[in-house]
Amino acid sequence: MFNITFRFESGETVEISAIAGEKLLDVARKANVAIDAPCSGNGVCGKCRVRLVAGYLDAPINRHISQEEYDAGWRLACMAQISGDAEIEVPDIASAYRSRMKMADLSSPEEIAIFEDLRQKLSDAGMNFRSDLSFLRLELDKPSLEDTMPDNERLLRAMEDATGVPMQAIMIPYSTLKNLSLTLRESNWKVKCVISRDNDRILVRDVLPGDNTDPMVGFALDLGTTSLAGVLVDLQTGKILAKASGGNGQIRYGADVINRIVESGKPGGRKRLQDAVIKESIIPMLAQMYRTSGVNPRRIYRMVVAGNTTMNHLLLGLHADPVRMEPFVPSFFRTDYLYVRDIDLKMNPQAELMISPNIGSYVGGDITAGALVSMIWNSPEMSLFIDLGTNGELVFGNNEFLMSCACSAGPAFEGGDISCGMRATDGAIEACTIDKETMEPTMTVVGGVAPAGICGSGIIDIIAELFRCGIINGKGKFVREGPRVLHDQHGMGAFVLAWQKDTGGVKDVVINEVDIDNFIRAKGAIFSATQTMLHSLGFDASVIERVYVAGGIGSGINMKNAVTIGMFPDIPLEEFHYIGNSSQAGAYAMLLSSEAREKVMELATSMTYLELSNEPGYMDQFVAACFLPHTDASLFPSVDI
Amino acid sequence: MFNITFRFESGETVEISAIAGEKLLDVARKANVAIDAPCSGNGVCGKCRVRLVAGYLDAPINRHISQEEYDAGWRLACMAQISGDAEIEVPDIASAYRSRMKMADLSSPEEIAIFEDLRQKLSDAGMNFRSDLSFLRLELDKPSLEDTMPDNERLLRAMEDATGVPMQAIMIPYSTLKNLSLTLRESNWKVKCVISRDNDRILVRDVLPGDNTDPMVGFALDLGTTSLAGVLVDLQTGKILAKASGGNGQIRYGADVINRIVESGKPGGRKRLQDAVIKESIIPMLAQMYRTSGVNPRRIYRMVVAGNTTMNHLLLGLHADPVRMEPFVPSFFRTDYLYVRDIDLKMNPQAELMISPNIGSYVGGDITAGALVSMIWNSPEMSLFIDLGTNGELVFGNNEFLMSCACSAGPAFEGGDISCGMRATDGAIEACTIDKETMEPTMTVVGGVAPAGICGSGIIDIIAELFRCGIINGKGKFVREGPRVLHDQHGMGAFVLAWQKDTGGVKDVVINEVDIDNFIRAKGAIFSATQTMLHSLGFDASVIERVYVAGGIGSGINMKNAVTIGMFPDIPLEEFHYIGNSSQAGAYAMLLSSEAREKVMELATSMTYLELSNEPGYMDQFVAACFLPHTDASLFPSVDI
Repeated sequence: MFNITFRFESGETVEISAIAGEKLLDVARKANVAIDAPCSGNGVCGKCRVRLVAGYLDAPINRHISQEEYDAGWRLACMAQISGDAEIEVPDIASAYRSRMKMADLSSPEEIAIFEDLRQKLSDAGMNFRSDLSFLRLELDKPSLEDTMPDNERLLRAMEDATGVPMQAIMIPYSTLKNLSLTLRESNWKVKCVISRDNDRILVRDVLPGDNTDPMVGFALDLGTTSLAGVLVDLQTGKILAKASGGNGQIRYGADVINRIVESGKPGGRKRLQDAVIKESIIPMLAQMYRTSGVNPRRIYRMVVAGNTTMNHLLLGLHADPVRMEPFVPSFFRTDYLYVRDIDLKMNPQAELMISPNIGSYVGGDITAGALVSMIWNSPEMSLFIDLGTNGELVFGNNEFLMSCACSAGPAFEGGDISCGMRATDGAIEACTIDKETMEPTMTVVGGVAPAGICGSGIIDIIAELFRCGIINGKGKFVREGPRVLHDQHGMGAFVLAWQKDTGGVKDVVINEVDIDNFIRAKGAIFSATQTMLHSLGFDASVIERVYVAGGIGSGINMKNAVTIGMFPDIPLEEFHYIGNSSQAGAYAMLLSSEAREKVMELATSMTYLELSNEPGYMDQFVAACFLPHTDASLFPSVDI
Repeated sequence: MFNITFRFESGETVEISAIAGEKLLDVARKANVAIDAPCSGNGVCGKCRVRLVAGYLDAPINRHISQEEYDAGWRLACMAQISGDAEIEVPDIASAYRSRMKMADLSSPEEIAIFEDLRQKLSDAGMNFRSDLSFLRLELDKPSLEDTMPDNERLLRAMEDATGVPMQAIMIPYSTLKNLSLTLRESNWKVKCVISRDNDRILVRDVLPGDNTDPMVGFALDLGTTSLAGVLVDLQTGKILAKASGGNGQIRYGADVINRIVESGKPGGRKRLQDAVIKESIIPMLAQMYRTSGVNPRRIYRMVVAGNTTMNHLLLGLHADPVRMEPFVPSFFRTDYLYVRDIDLKMNPQAELMISPNIGSYVGGDITAGALVSMIWNSPEMSLFIDLGTNGELVFGNNEFLMSCACSAGPAFEGGDISCGMRATDGAIEACTIDKETMEPTMTVVGGVAPAGICGSGIIDIIAELFRCGIINGKGKFVREGPRVLHDQHGMGAFVLAWQKDTGGVKDVVINEVDIDNFIRAKGAIFSATQTMLHSLGFDASVIERVYVAGGIGSGINMKNAVTIGMFPDIPLEEFHYIGNSSQAGAYAMLLSSEAREKVMELATSMTYLELSNEPGYMDQFVAACFLPHTDASLFPSVDI
């Protein structure tokens, strides 16, 4: 047995024993050290770079590591085997989960405003925000030798008097009964009950002392493949009490849903994947929100999750193989009667776990929740809703019909498959312009620090600018020379955005032809999905009146540049609307309003699902779209380069 | 810190550390060594005798320990303090829990027959034994690209087709959803579902492979203050699959309910008392039954408990102080919506925990369940049902009315408060006759071994025989001399049943005047309760047509002797019926039949509860009954001594 020490930039360390021959990435997983390995450990993506500070590791040099870097101790964790004691430095950039956690406190007024706008919009659409949960204050008759009714019947009697619901239809579960006797006596028989009413029945979820002032809380979770975002909400006022986000701990089992399903099918895999998201991601997020808000977990009476079909299955620890394998029949699209306790989260024991309904293997609850928020179901305008995540999902239609489809965009929008790609954390180039004359870039970097990599919106800008400046051609190949344009021994071109000597980083921040090619495929997938879906309805892009863009990539997205590279259809820029994290906003609405929940169920039932792989023209559309902006330039009349 | 080793007759040892001054009984409790201490550790009962084999203990001599015994190492655990390392021998007789466990395999054909008779009797009374739980075999359509309905909807569709219940009214909880996908595929879409129907709704409790042959099982538990008895039952056939009994682990916190309530009110007490009965008593009983029957705990779909009001509260971990304190208002009489998982027992996650309803602080679910079994509600004959436990409970009435009351008989019927008393385990004298001439006793001993003590039925016989032979008078004082009659220095008489030199035991087995006095009080409590209840109705004992006796004491009980000592009313002997453990039998019936459950609820609602302490004549009745057979000999015309 050897001692392996992981050291983080924060100075924190984690130690674990390992045996000779074990893969370092596996050892890290056992130690709960999350190293970002989007390709799931095949030496392909080069993201799992760590540095051997002392000791031994049996690791080959690799195309992602230069000789100089190798000499400085850099290794790929997925290619390194234990061969002795070792001290390993894990840069924050390799540890998606940790670096994400640093963002968790960002809760800007703009973000809060999204939720407030949403309530207004839904309310304008006639949706009622009255909850089925409410407080009920009661003062009970004190017992005496003449009135010796036991505590639970005494409560039922008072509740029957106050509500008119007969006591036979009022349920007191164990969790409420357990402390009833003490609470009644300690509060001098004046109590505040938390009840829910459903079909003329009452469930008594809590009996609190009359002077208790705790809010009644709900938890809305956007459960993404890459990252999670959650809010604690006052269920009576809709106020956001706390907000947090974090990486999905499952990322160490692969960046995409397919790799995770495969991993979950191995012995113990379902538990492992479930633990990774619950114990490593959701629980720490909740803990942080409890700290900042003072919310008592026991006062959380409902949780709504909006996630894709695979994430929903893995959250529940379900067998997920059928999601990815023909005939693509998952365990559920819609499932009721779940409780938060079923996934071992400690909230109120009666708290329901509500899952926004899936409508196909690749169009999940994140999209049905998002479709609610897009409001495209409430207007006669033909609208397109695009959620840019690890998968790209689209919904098209209006108040008369809705059609959805999903395409595999890959991780490029989130910085995966890009040599210097990273998520939108500190150091990420998120916007860029290039001077056509001098070819010098001007960049905006998240956190205002030195550039360390490029996130999705930055890549869109860079590619659009390189194209506009004639540095690359429509195929994404470098066609202009300059001081920042490099070529390797195979002739592959690259553009240097920031020199290592200027940033003090581990290498130059560049974008190369392979990166550009990967991104062109991603944007091509989105555009060809749009085209194919429209064609299946007998339409073309000219029918689109509005485009709603959602997803993590979107916040810094330059719509003009996205059109320039042929990612979105060429319609007037004022018709593009960025609606933020629509999946989370939808979960928020479902938390507060049973009418919103019903609406989402209705959308899920009525929405048509188009399986793109079954559409004969899709592959041709995709190939035609893998060009800047498109092989058919007439589709992008506004792009004039 | 000192090392304390407890050594059992079996040779097994348990070690624990303790500090100087700790009470040995507390140390034993911490080590989970159950030493029988009915008086709850006040040096009064003398039952917690242990032997110091090596090392040190700071323990005074006590009236329960002779100098000779003291020299041989005998100490009272409740009076001994740690003063060094010590090795302590715990005789089986001191360890009620362990010695009880030895009985656990006794499951005689006679006992089994009781359940079969019961089903017949209830069935004759028009009670339906059709369960709301049933198996439903389904063969689902296999999914295809043309039929991609998800697994849960596929199941719902098939179930709707098979039952006619619309799928909106069929619930699939998480525990069923969790493995649904794998089960459907591994069983080639042929499944056996376990469902329950209630108000036109179906709950799908399990989906098993079609070839699964596991029975559908229920667990009936008689939860006594002193001991527990449980059966696993095939819910379809009523067949007993396994049977076990054991001591109540709470006994180390006191023999009676009052001491236990007091203990449960101390910090951490509710959890301690709950753990003592669940972890130390119920779980080992279940484990044993699983071993002998091969039942899979996950196939237990329902549990019914019949226990007294205090035991029910402590099982659920509820605040129990109000049970014993004026105005005697417990948390519940009847409570629904409980699940086995609420008390952390691992059975089917949807298994309900049904508690036979209490009707007062001292008349609990054991009596309502027992009243069902007595069948006194089904006949015009005026009948008295007596359950002899640590408390004595009585129900009087017929098919037109029922009245109940409870009296504190104390532990005498189970061998407590009696110097050589013990429970009905190996070595207990359970029956006795005495030759009037020679005064020589002839005894029946449980297990056919040398006599070690006397159990309840033995004490009845001995007192009746001593009285019949003129050895004691009506006050229980010794009035005749003989070789077996001894007097101590204070003049207190005693009768030697077995000499130490003949038995090889630790001392002579005797019954003395204090024992007789304690027992006379216990029987006086029962008889005066009977009288008081009858008088409150304007009756006297002559109205009683039948007497049903239940409880652990009863199996060897000699009814003639019980009448002789004035414990039961003087009616023709053929009208006495011993009905065994009626509490357990009632739980069994409730498990199998929803009509039986409804009947018990109806009995609980209609039964009047008489609080004896509020009855003006009760104390006079009690004093009058503390005589053999009674101060008013005319009440016992058949007793001619």
